[in-house]
Amino acid sequence: MSMNPVIALLGRRLRLAVIGGGPGSFIGAMHRMAAQLDNRYELVAAALSSNPERALAAGLELGLAADRVYGSGEALLDGEHLHPQGADVVAIMTPNDSHFALASAALERGFDVICDKPMTNTLDEAEHLLATVKATGQVFCLTHNYTGYPMVRQAKAMIAAGELGTIRLVQVEYVQGGNAEGVPVKPGAWRHDPLKGGPSLVLGDIGSHAHNLLRFMTGLEVAELAAEVGAIVPGRMVHDYAGALLRLSNGARGNFWVTQAAAGVENCLRIRVSGSLGSLEWEQEHPQVLHFKPQTGPAQIRTPNGPGTLPLAARSSRIVKGHPEGFPEAFANLYSDAAEAIAARRAQVKPDPLALFFPNATDGLAGVRFVAAMMESATANGAWVMLD
Amino acid sequence: MSMNPVIALLGRRLRLAVIGGGPGSFIGAMHRMAAQLDNRYELVAAALSSNPERALAAGLELGLAADRVYGSGEALLDGEHLHPQGADVVAIMTPNDSHFALASAALERGFDVICDKPMTNTLDEAEHLLATVKATGQVFCLTHNYTGYPMVRQAKAMIAAGELGTIRLVQVEYVQGGNAEGVPVKPGAWRHDPLKGGPSLVLGDIGSHAHNLLRFMTGLEVAELAAEVGAIVPGRMVHDYAGALLRLSNGARGNFWVTQAAAGVENCLRIRVSGSLGSLEWEQEHPQVLHFKPQTGPAQIRTPNGPGTLPLAARSSRIVKGHPEGFPEAFANLYSDAAEAIAARRAQVKPDPLALFFPNATDGLAGVRFVAAMMESATANGAWVMLD
Amino acid sequence: MSMNPVIALLGRRLRLAVIGGGPGSFIGAMHRMAAQLDNRYELVAAALSSNPERALAAGLELGLAADRVYGSGEALLDGEHLHPQGADVVAIMTPNDSHFALASAALERGFDVICDKPMTNTLDEAEHLLATVKATGQVFCLTHNYTGYPMVRQAKAMIAAGELGTIRLVQVEYVQGGNAEGVPVKPGAWRHDPLKGGPSLVLGDIGSHAHNLLRFMTGLEVAELAAEVGAIVPGRMVHDYAGALLRLSNGARGNFWVTQAAAGVENCLRIRVSGSLGSLEWEQEHPQVLHFKPQTGPAQIRTPNGPGTLPLAARSSRIVKGHPEGFPEAFANLYSDAAEAIAARRAQVKPDPLALFFPNATDGLAGVRFVAAMMESATANGAWVMLD
Amino acid sequence: MSMNPVIALLGRRLRLAVIGGGPGSFIGAMHRMAAQLDNRYELVAAALSSNPERALAAGLELGLAADRVYGSGEALLDGEHLHPQGADVVAIMTPNDSHFALASAALERGFDVICDKPMTNTLDEAEHLLATVKATGQVFCLTHNYTGYPMVRQAKAMIAAGELGTIRLVQVEYVQGGNAEGVPVKPGAWRHDPLKGGPSLVLGDIGSHAHNLLRFMTGLEVAELAAEVGAIVPGRMVHDYAGALLRLSNGARGNFWVTQAAAGVENCLRIRVSGSLGSLEWEQEHPQVLHFKPQTGPAQIRTPNGPGTLPLAARSSRIVKGHPEGFPEAFANLYSDAAEAIAARRAQVKPDPLALFFPNATDGLAGVRFVAAMMESATANGAWVMLD
Repeated sequence: MSMNPVIALLGRRLRLAVIGGGPGSFIGAMHRMAAQLDNRYELVAAALSSNPERALAAGLELGLAADRVYGSGEALLDGEHLHPQGADVVAIMTPNDSHFALASAALERGFDVICDKPMTNTLDEAEHLLATVKATGQVFCLTHNYTGYPMVRQAKAMIAAGELGTIRLVQVEYVQGGNAEGVPVKPGAWRHDPLKGGPSLVLGDIGSHAHNLLRFMTGLEVAELAAEVGAIVPGRMVHDYAGALLRLSNGARGNFWVTQAAAGVENCLRIRVSGSLGSLEWEQEHPQVLHFKPQTGPAQIRTPNGPGTLPLAARSSRIVKGHPEGFPEAFANLYSDAAEAIAARRAQVKPDPLALFFPNATDGLAGVRFVAAMMESATANGAWVMLD
Repeated sequence: MSMNPVIALLGRRLRLAVIGGGPGSFIGAMHRMAAQLDNRYELVAAALSSNPERALAAGLELGLAADRVYGSGEALLDGEHLHPQGADVVAIMTPNDSHFALASAALERGFDVICDKPMTNTLDEAEHLLATVKATGQVFCLTHNYTGYPMVRQAKAMIAAGELGTIRLVQVEYVQGGNAEGVPVKPGAWRHDPLKGGPSLVLGDIGSHAHNLLRFMTGLEVAELAAEVGAIVPGRMVHDYAGALLRLSNGARGNFWVTQAAAGVENCLRIRVSGSLGSLEWEQEHPQVLHFKPQTGPAQIRTPNGPGTLPLAARSSRIVKGHPEGFPEAFANLYSDAAEAIAARRAQVKPDPLALFFPNATDGLAGVRFVAAMMESATANGAWVMLD
Repeated sequence: MSMNPVIALLGRRLRLAVIGGGPGSFIGAMHRMAAQLDNRYELVAAALSSNPERALAAGLELGLAADRVYGSGEALLDGEHLHPQGADVVAIMTPNDSHFALASAALERGFDVICDKPMTNTLDEAEHLLATVKATGQVFCLTHNYTGYPMVRQAKAMIAAGELGTIRLVQVEYVQGGNAEGVPVKPGAWRHDPLKGGPSLVLGDIGSHAHNLLRFMTGLEVAELAAEVGAIVPGRMVHDYAGALLRLSNGARGNFWVTQAAAGVENCLRIRVSGSLGSLEWEQEHPQVLHFKPQTGPAQIRTPNGPGTLPLAARSSRIVKGHPEGFPEAFANLYSDAAEAIAARRAQVKPDPLALFFPNATDGLAGVRFVAAMMESATANGAWVMLD
Repeated sequence: MSMNPVIALLGRRLRLAVIGGGPGSFIGAMHRMAAQLDNRYELVAAALSSNPERALAAGLELGLAADRVYGSGEALLDGEHLHPQGADVVAIMTPNDSHFALASAALERGFDVICDKPMTNTLDEAEHLLATVKATGQVFCLTHNYTGYPMVRQAKAMIAAGELGTIRLVQVEYVQGGNAEGVPVKPGAWRHDPLKGGPSLVLGDIGSHAHNLLRFMTGLEVAELAAEVGAIVPGRMVHDYAGALLRLSNGARGNFWVTQAAAGVENCLRIRVSGSLGSLEWEQEHPQVLHFKPQTGPAQIRTPNGPGTLPLAARSSRIVKGHPEGFPEAFANLYSDAAEAIAARRAQVKPDPLALFFPNATDGLAGVRFVAAMMESATANGAWVMLD
């Protein structure tokens, strides 16, 4: 295989424009690293701030030409659309309430799109965006980055291959301590503003990741849920915890728990999937380890490129076994897979089917629906709600 | 302190009679080891089987005199009651449906009682038994053995001392794989017979442990719950999973998940308690480790007899730091604490207050109530149920 | 199988007398618990202190009859020898320099002997003691207790069964922090007195355990070694670290490192054995876990009573899988195996061959030889020394 | 701080040329990722193979202009030296025996140099190369990549700040299973050819890493060593294991063990450093965790950006706490630090002192000396050898 399938197909890297993620943004830096790591994208344009002066300064800091630095996402879309060597791909990492308009506009102008999660704040927007993606036929990648870890993909592949038998029970939790203290919300903290951040802080921020991880790994949908969502830190106006009992599309049962108010906990995204033949356990803080506990035979520790590695996991790791990869590489897997899909589309060839496991607009809609159903159930004091 | 507080008070060990736990019983062997480990009890009598011949053979194998081997619990209670050197304490490890009658009869004859969990199968029985305990003033110890682990007691003591601040969030799970396969139930498997095993296999077997662990560690009660309880293995008639969202007595929120159908999982009893100042995490498969994650300051690994050990934990460990203790020692902590309480009662002195943390009939009633509330909520399709 | 093979053979438990291990002694308490746990011994006599008054008080605290409490080991041996219901077995847990005389005298009087390690302080004594054991035909059990852990025994059995292929490389370390501070030595601290404690504190205390663990697990002998032994804490007169390169009897190579001066470390006894087919890793602080890393196939976590458990390990565990056992149970495995051997000898039947894996006088001599060779090499500035 | 300090100083990224690391090379891909991750280098030229056709094909696959693809390192150095927009920096990842000539030639032509380890195969070469680096004043970065991990740097900073007190004991091991099988050596496998790979396969490949990690973390030198080096896999002509006892420059003692023949082990690079105030433990397979065990106070788990993070570690991590980074990020830390040093040199400003912790030619010489001393001691049957 080529060392760079994008260059192999197009003779050059994809031209990338980013909207959002300016100085001080963690996720902005991650998006750019993810794009750079495998050298499949060249950053050519950016709108890094809604303040034009700061946007310019930041763009120059990233080494962009001054005429490719824009003061708004809209200006960027227009400018790059007209530019003879304009961007191929637009990556959006702005506050959640702007995803819909920016992504829609980008798609309509022919860009392929990479968008941070959650896809949108409302169901209506999500349905429309999915329709636009389908209508345009362009690539839409939603950065549910935890699906990029090699051992998450190994788990998905093992389950898909039947190594767990019938899935019966799933537990997923995402527990953080970042909002354990009841500090006053800073002005401009858009995550704490439901109009911008969406209906539920904890569900948008991390609940959507937990839900997507469950779907990705098991291939099942949440069919029904009974939930409680609320704020446990005194005085808080946004949600900081959510729990639910789940019924999955094949009749399996599940448990869901997310919070950002667990003081001292760093980033415990953890899942256990049990089938008729065994269980899998994975935890984001130690992402290279996948515990496989067969019903018969000793428990196994699966690692990237170790024995039993399936193709989807093998292509998702850059290293020899025993060496760790982390969050940036997982994030980069989404970017690099999307790059393969985009390059194939533009070269009018069939992409490698294994490149198509990045989250897309259908996943984005499922996530928005899940958040809506969680809210509906919680409002109904935990009544079971069906997702269609 | 004396090397043996019972001998120090009474001049001899307590005389123990056991009902149940004959050949092939795991829990019977554990009860006897727990009694022997610290040399506070002398086994003097037993009713090890309802089959008189097997009861005799087993009693002789344990080194008992033939006239102290009984063919039934009732015979044992009568015989030891009349015996001039009769048992002081009766330990009951029979099928759940017999706990009530045997414990009541034992108390009424003046024995102190150690009883396996769950205390009873019905609320009515539990309330009556608690009343009997209170009326007699004798010691009643319920072997929720996980509360005997040194680091569980350390966690309780740290929380009681305010080291976690206000408790806000609790997750408790007990996940096993023992019933992952849908094998036909053997005749006589009393656990699979609701009339003997109680209304819910999974809740009686392990759910009651998880609930009690939560109460013991936090000092809080489950005030309300919304639950689902069921069987996920095809063809099974008894429950093999149960999940619930919890509201605790101080307003904290919780998540509860137990199952015996998680193929390949051994014995994952796990709890995380988060307060305003930090979180504690404990897991039964590695019981010597208590993770303390303060909101400020680095995460800590607390171990028995390590720095910061509080008195309740210190008295619950027999070893120098770095050496492991296990399930038998935790079990023995209940027996040995109960022995101190019993010896003090019989010597008419005040016991060491730290000896009084073994689970008792009040805890037993709380457990039976919890199971009943879980069933009630599940039957009402997950409606919130209040526990009084 | 009988619930108590000693009672099955003899109709009663073995009568045990202990010398040493009085109030405040950790190891004394461990010996007594180890004897009690499986109910194969009845403690009938003790010499718990060289101070007669303290010996008596302590004996009474343990519930002994006053006339079975002795003021010295010699008095105990004489008294119990003459007593019509005298002890069968004598357990010795006195300072190292007294092991030889007490064990020899006990054997000569017909007692079976359980003795703490190291067996003796000098090679000459060790050779004589082994000769006495052979001459008398009585049981001699040396409490290298780490060989009692189920997963250590599983490792031994797997290696013996060829599951690792040819053994090539062994690393063993025993690292503690107990002597990390240069505190003044208390008067009477016999371990710090080479005349009593032996030629090397760290080697006698823990080096002998590490060496025995290597031998037990691999079935190989240390054939040659090149060592350094010394004191790293300023002002210390006894050894607190020792390292060596090893050549084993089959040509395998090894690495050995022990210290009690690693500040903050609890009790890291750790071994890795690599053969042509895979590696095994075990660590005392998490004794229930045996890592098996086959050269082909995924890494495995082996646990007591889990899949693949071999008979030697199966008989060394009392619990169902997923429940932890610890140091007392491992210690008790030696006592209980020795009890089976003693009972069989006394009943003149063949013992279960699997009961004979407790360390014996041959192992004790090997340990004393190892310490002597370490000292010889270190004195010769690390020259390679052959052990015969 | 700027989002890109190189662009901030130079107005552009550094131009990088690479020699070696063509298709199929793990380390070549790592070097290029490390250069790309933080966008401080632009790859402009390469000599990826000694076969001109393959070199051209590979260069084009990486997106290079055909006239910047060279058929040999020498041609690249000449071509880029003359090119008006020629490379600033040359990265060398060719077989070990070529490092000296290529690095010397690169330095003499004014390039800054990044070179894979070991620096050279002979002491003489190492001394000359260090002299050339000093004479030219250019930057020389040796990719002992394990020093780039945030928690390795945290450990170094804690030790430098005195948090461990006086260093007394160090254990370092690097254990792999990659050469556990005695497969026939493939033609062209330069590592197995001492003329190309250097005097000792295992010492050059991983022993040099273990040695450098010890030096980096502790700030101490190996002053004396007693070693054994050899081949344990039957029929092997190159070394696959090496062990040593160490005396460090401050009188501390150490233990060293490396092998590539431990079947089934992945990549266990592990170090424990004990000082008078506590111990630190780190393991490459879980690089985000630094165990700190103070002599007083509970054991701590330190993580990137967690409480107590020192500046050297803080600048070495790109993520929020609880998210993993891995090998590529650690590798990139060396590249990015070197880039800061190079940019500062070229801009004639003082670099950030914290950017200067990448391994350099002095470290490279120390590594070559260490290998030579290991060989000398082993040849002298383990005699102690002093390093000057």
